[in-house]
Amino acid sequence: MPRREGEALVQVLCAGICSTDLEIVKGYAGFSGTLGHEFVGRVVESSGSIPIGSRVVGEINVGCNACPECLESDSRHCPERTVLGIKGRDGAFAEYLTLPGRNLVVIPDSLTDEEAVFVEPLAAACHVLEQVEAAAGSTVAVIGDGKLAQLIVRVLAHAGCATAMIGKHRQKLDLCKIAGVRTMLLESATGAGDLLAALGGEKLNIVVEASGSASGMQLALALIKPRGSIVLKSTYHGATRLDAWKIVVDEISIVGSRCGRFQPAIDLLASGAVDVRPLVTARFPLDNGIAAFRAAANPANLKVTLDIAMKGASS
Amino acid sequence: MPRREGEALVQVLCAGICSTDLEIVKGYAGFSGTLGHEFVGRVVESSGSIPIGSRVVGEINVGCNACPECLESDSRHCPERTVLGIKGRDGAFAEYLTLPGRNLVVIPDSLTDEEAVFVEPLAAACHVLEQVEAAAGSTVAVIGDGKLAQLIVRVLAHAGCATAMIGKHRQKLDLCKIAGVRTMLLESATGAGDLLAALGGEKLNIVVEASGSASGMQLALALIKPRGSIVLKSTYHGATRLDAWKIVVDEISIVGSRCGRFQPAIDLLASGAVDVRPLVTARFPLDNGIAAFRAAANPANLKVTLDIAMKGASS
Repeated sequence: MPRREGEALVQVLCAGICSTDLEIVKGYAGFSGTLGHEFVGRVVESSGSIPIGSRVVGEINVGCNACPECLESDSRHCPERTVLGIKGRDGAFAEYLTLPGRNLVVIPDSLTDEEAVFVEPLAAACHVLEQVEAAAGSTVAVIGDGKLAQLIVRVLAHAGCATAMIGKHRQKLDLCKIAGVRTMLLESATGAGDLLAALGGEKLNIVVEASGSASGMQLALALIKPRGSIVLKSTYHGATRLDAWKIVVDEISIVGSRCGRFQPAIDLLASGAVDVRPLVTARFPLDNGIAAFRAAANPANLKVTLDIAMKGASS
Repeated sequence: MPRREGEALVQVLCAGICSTDLEIVKGYAGFSGTLGHEFVGRVVESSGSIPIGSRVVGEINVGCNACPECLESDSRHCPERTVLGIKGRDGAFAEYLTLPGRNLVVIPDSLTDEEAVFVEPLAAACHVLEQVEAAAGSTVAVIGDGKLAQLIVRVLAHAGCATAMIGKHRQKLDLCKIAGVRTMLLESATGAGDLLAALGGEKLNIVVEASGSASGMQLALALIKPRGSIVLKSTYHGATRLDAWKIVVDEISIVGSRCGRFQPAIDLLASGAVDVRPLVTARFPLDNGIAAFRAAANPANLKVTLDIAMKGASS
């Protein structure tokens, strides 16, 4: 996958490792090439209206720009799309990457590189609110306490939802001690009934499954109210067993959720409404990428970044 | 389960055997009692405003009439509900049944008993259009050619959808040679690609899975467009394997669908917009119920009815 003609050349400043990257390493999506789709960089050769020297993040889906999806909506579902570091296009764990100028978004100077790396996953978290109606004041449960779950919880809390984060790691749950968020430790003996009782006894209209596990899906089905919506917000590798009968009897909607628009995420970061800084738990230089991946696969860590200009071991 | 105090007593005239009944016999829903939830009968003792002698059909979900579900919406999702012949309440494969007066709906004289038996399943079919927006002119695929699939196809065609019925039984598909319906025989060598090519090459916004099989679910996922909706409209017994990753990547919605309101179904039958008569393929008297169930389990049959007043073998 060489550099594409007519695209902007971006020098990568910092990149984040995501669970999808870890799944790709295990074989998910059949991708081979340079990984990495969460990044901030500086434009060194421009193909469009963005001036050279601009600090940018990049929409990762590159559409054909000709099909009905691209023309009527956006390129996130173009059937011919390439996706940065995921499908047919080298990614951000490198000194340079290329993307069409239309995919780049200039970020405010007030955001650090480390914060800007969160624009892509935070956009994915914001997208949940474009797919289901989570009324302010309503209780929404998020299953999982990993990187993406942490962002979703913050987005929901900022939208005024009474947000319950259900996870297996006390240390990660403790990072969500923020206004409007209640954390619940899921231990081996904890049943869905215990969780519901702690939430006031009522099943929920919206549950976000962000653990990527079959047991998380089961728990979501146990917490959801008839006619409620379960948002699937994770990378699932392989087939998952699902109680289809319950979906039918309770008329539940299962809503798949992937990438989101960047602007709402940039706004949340720039306004300080969402603080992502506590979520970076390890930083590595690019030439220590293997160690960075090992660290990212360690459940004790949350976001692990590759600081491209950094030299040395890790911090 | 004795007769309930304060409920209307209904003499059953005719009842239909549904796939859910066949699944209950195999253990689905853990029900023990008198089966049967599709029926038409005559009120012999009234508890409410419906006069004795009225010919009625009956909403099968009986709610507590006190919880928020019952008070704000209807009893279809009351957590304390009983369901005629399915949950905590004896059903219609009997000479008499009881239901609260509020569950009964008087049917027009123009409908035969045999047609009126279809009100309950046809209401379930109509319910699909209350859950997803199927624009007139859009192509909708229905997977399955059984009893419920036949009704869904007719409802969608009447709503102006270009409806494709995908099934494994030529004889059943041939019953759907009606305006606006295209039938497609699924043979062992038929791939999703073949079906899509025959449909014009474009994936679909709405697919209704009415086969109740894991392979039907797989096919639905292969036919659906990104951001499209798959309606699950069948009785699934046990867990089903599902490609959750595809639901996420393509942001598909899976929508469970169960019972519907009766009035739209009565209107479709009374106006002649939906003709259900060709769907009755065998009739049995109540005292030959075992044979009736055997016939209903035979894939060659569609709707099998129990004619309660009929004496003798079958017709």
